[in-house]
Amino acid sequence: MELDRNSTIPLHRQVENYIKKKISSGEWAVGTKLPSQRSLADSLAVNRSTVITALEELAALGLIEGRHGGGTKVINNTWGLVARRKPADWGNYVEAGRYKSNLPMIRKINEAEFYPGMIRMGTGELSPALLPNERFAGLLKNAPSGLLSLGYQEPKGDIRLREEISRHLMAIGIQTELSSILVVSGALQALQLISIGLLDHGSTLILEKPSYLYSIHVFQSLGMRFVGLPIDSDGMRPEKLSDYKKQYQGSIVYTIPSFHNPTGVVMTEKRRRELLLECGRERLPIIEDDVYRDLWLDAPPPCTLKGMDQSGNVLYIGSLSKILSPGLRIGWVVGPAPVIDRLADIKMQSDYGASSLSQWAAEESLRTGLYEEHACFVREQLKARRDDLAELLDQYFSDIAAWRIPTGGFYVWLKLVPKIDPHLLFEEALRHGILLNPGVMYDRGARQYLRLSYAYAASEEMKKAIRILRKLVMELAGGEKIT
Amino acid sequence: MELDRNSTIPLHRQVENYIKKKISSGEWAVGTKLPSQRSLADSLAVNRSTVITALEELAALGLIEGRHGGGTKVINNTWGLVARRKPADWGNYVEAGRYKSNLPMIRKINEAEFYPGMIRMGTGELSPALLPNERFAGLLKNAPSGLLSLGYQEPKGDIRLREEISRHLMAIGIQTELSSILVVSGALQALQLISIGLLDHGSTLILEKPSYLYSIHVFQSLGMRFVGLPIDSDGMRPEKLSDYKKQYQGSIVYTIPSFHNPTGVVMTEKRRRELLLECGRERLPIIEDDVYRDLWLDAPPPCTLKGMDQSGNVLYIGSLSKILSPGLRIGWVVGPAPVIDRLADIKMQSDYGASSLSQWAAEESLRTGLYEEHACFVREQLKARRDDLAELLDQYFSDIAAWRIPTGGFYVWLKLVPKIDPHLLFEEALRHGILLNPGVMYDRGARQYLRLSYAYAASEEMKKAIRILRKLVMELAGGEKIT
Repeated sequence: MELDRNSTIPLHRQVENYIKKKISSGEWAVGTKLPSQRSLADSLAVNRSTVITALEELAALGLIEGRHGGGTKVINNTWGLVARRKPADWGNYVEAGRYKSNLPMIRKINEAEFYPGMIRMGTGELSPALLPNERFAGLLKNAPSGLLSLGYQEPKGDIRLREEISRHLMAIGIQTELSSILVVSGALQALQLISIGLLDHGSTLILEKPSYLYSIHVFQSLGMRFVGLPIDSDGMRPEKLSDYKKQYQGSIVYTIPSFHNPTGVVMTEKRRRELLLECGRERLPIIEDDVYRDLWLDAPPPCTLKGMDQSGNVLYIGSLSKILSPGLRIGWVVGPAPVIDRLADIKMQSDYGASSLSQWAAEESLRTGLYEEHACFVREQLKARRDDLAELLDQYFSDIAAWRIPTGGFYVWLKLVPKIDPHLLFEEALRHGILLNPGVMYDRGARQYLRLSYAYAASEEMKKAIRILRKLVMELAGGEKIT
Repeated sequence: MELDRNSTIPLHRQVENYIKKKISSGEWAVGTKLPSQRSLADSLAVNRSTVITALEELAALGLIEGRHGGGTKVINNTWGLVARRKPADWGNYVEAGRYKSNLPMIRKINEAEFYPGMIRMGTGELSPALLPNERFAGLLKNAPSGLLSLGYQEPKGDIRLREEISRHLMAIGIQTELSSILVVSGALQALQLISIGLLDHGSTLILEKPSYLYSIHVFQSLGMRFVGLPIDSDGMRPEKLSDYKKQYQGSIVYTIPSFHNPTGVVMTEKRRRELLLECGRERLPIIEDDVYRDLWLDAPPPCTLKGMDQSGNVLYIGSLSKILSPGLRIGWVVGPAPVIDRLADIKMQSDYGASSLSQWAAEESLRTGLYEEHACFVREQLKARRDDLAELLDQYFSDIAAWRIPTGGFYVWLKLVPKIDPHLLFEEALRHGILLNPGVMYDRGARQYLRLSYAYAASEEMKKAIRILRKLVMELAGGEKIT
């Protein structure tokens, strides 16, 4: 927006007209909060007093209203004034839906990922440099011509893709029929389908604490509660399962047994057996979120819970996002046929199934070996990056933090010794061009933790970020004695 | 499954073992209903008595249980028997989720679409023969190599796709900023996001009756109610809006103004203005579902409600599914920025955004003119098909039904004169290889109606189907006098 500085129309009137147009076009609908006076002045390159004059005029017209502490809101629009009635107040609708907004910190992260030059030290996805871009373009060149009519009508997903998934599952010890596999648009959608399709309002999920699940609202938005079980270096500790089931009416267990997010822990085989046994006794079904499995760096993790399970108690979730690309949006759920039927029905009601183009590309990636070969490449690259980060931490954080070297996945779960306000650290880091995922996102009590990721930032960037981070931590710790 | 007829193991024991394996593997989990004795006998090619012996044995073992009228269910499994406890009862979970199942008739339709040779006379999608398969494959050949890292991170969808959508909208008279556009995985997902993001449990939607919306559960599953307004040849009649808003606490209006599904009606420009005025007065926001707009056969429909709206009261939904391919799963919602922000946040929480591959293909299709050119082709083809169907109806149904020739979209809303049980007609037609969408799917009271589609079946198939349909209607009408 450029104001005309040679015009005979005064600047404050031009500002007023500019805002009026935004309001009358519906872009700033009733209920919208206006940008601050300062930011309006900045973006229009006028004095703040000019903005204030314009806003006063608009308030006098009954179009906007300032509230103490609440900023200025659009309360009516030009059309509404003509009709002498107020138009629909979308603000009320935005607040009405039952779904919770993303955590403010997560929204901030989502936004800041686009700031140029930002170093993303917490991100849960691969660096674009690690994606199989060339090979994938090659695969598309050989696309058959019938692609557009593929897959759409099959509620559980394209049958050929399910065949490839079934082969992939076989290789990790899961034998299943095609009717027990549902193709989904990524693992997150699997969780959403489970939440709306299988669980009641007021259900309680028993899960590791910390857990990735605390950072999303898929279950809480539907009125479900979480009870966290402690996790040690062998994985989730199931001793309390029985108590928690009784005490909190727990109805399902959620776990990330391999390269747990955010701690990186791998559940041992022994612990897996114990968990299965305990859940079997308690008649608690298990959701096994296994999206990190193929990202082992030192040795493959133990067999899946699903593969060890003899009783159909486990719903298994896998995905291509962590190796091939998150942008493909292809994952799967495997479970007893009636459960999969139900989830497929809801998937059909939500979006009529995953993109047939993505489904075809996923099938080809699995069938041609692209996926497996690229998994090898990613493991190699991530191993080097993990080792780099480990070295940097040794160098810069050995006196002010504790951590365990992960054997796979994306994350180091770093515990800072000084007790710093995590929100302050997040903001300070952001100001220095570093994007962090503080531990509080995954457990409100984990105020001393950071989830560091070695999957996104290049080695040079990690070096820069870790150096700055040390400096920030030391500054924020202030007088606190570090022991 | 093949039984070994030369084995020393008796057949009934083999059947027993076969079922045991299904149960112990979890494929037939606890809560699963077994296939009927007859269908088991058929699929295993044994006598029904052999199946009965096997089932009796399994019941004695405590693995299954027959209920009068309720069929036979798995109540335990081999592992559960060993542990002396029952494993998780998935059946309970399947029934627990708050989401409703698809209507039985719709599930039947979804299933029957795969029966070979079935003539689909009600389907809401284009025949595969009408999809731009060759050109689309050509487009993929030129895919750039950075595809996998596109779009994923932008909550509102790839910015280049939104630019193309904005250009497309401009051409139909909608001016909007990119921040007011949200890319979704098809129009159905738009409705789902609106239902969970903007509306409260217990909200009431005011909509046309009949309406496509009655056939899906997106809103009802979240406890929302519908109030239907009558529709005449000019579209939804808004006179009762005010009454209905008061009487039923209506909170939002949903309409398909152009080529309404299922009636095919186009709302006149005059009626559109009245609706907007009335909704403005009543402060009722409008959801404008405009996915059929580009399928005009005789003349383009009047301007969109969104384009006529001066007050930001309209949320607009569009899609590529009806012209390009449903398999792409790309649609859009356009509305006031705060509403779009909210919906984008929920989309991110549901599936992290649409497939980047689909988004790129959609962008290319719009940018290169493939979409527009193909729209011309589809219009031409559909026009011929519509004329064919009209001729067939004249020939075979003029004495037993009434209809209006649609000027666009996919459907003829056929009213049968004889009062036949629609479920009976559906079943009979199915037996004759014809898949129908009875009117009751769109309005429980529309028992005499059928939604006929000319988009899927080829002319020869339509001819065959219409002939048979006449025969079935006459038979089922029986003695009823046709006037």
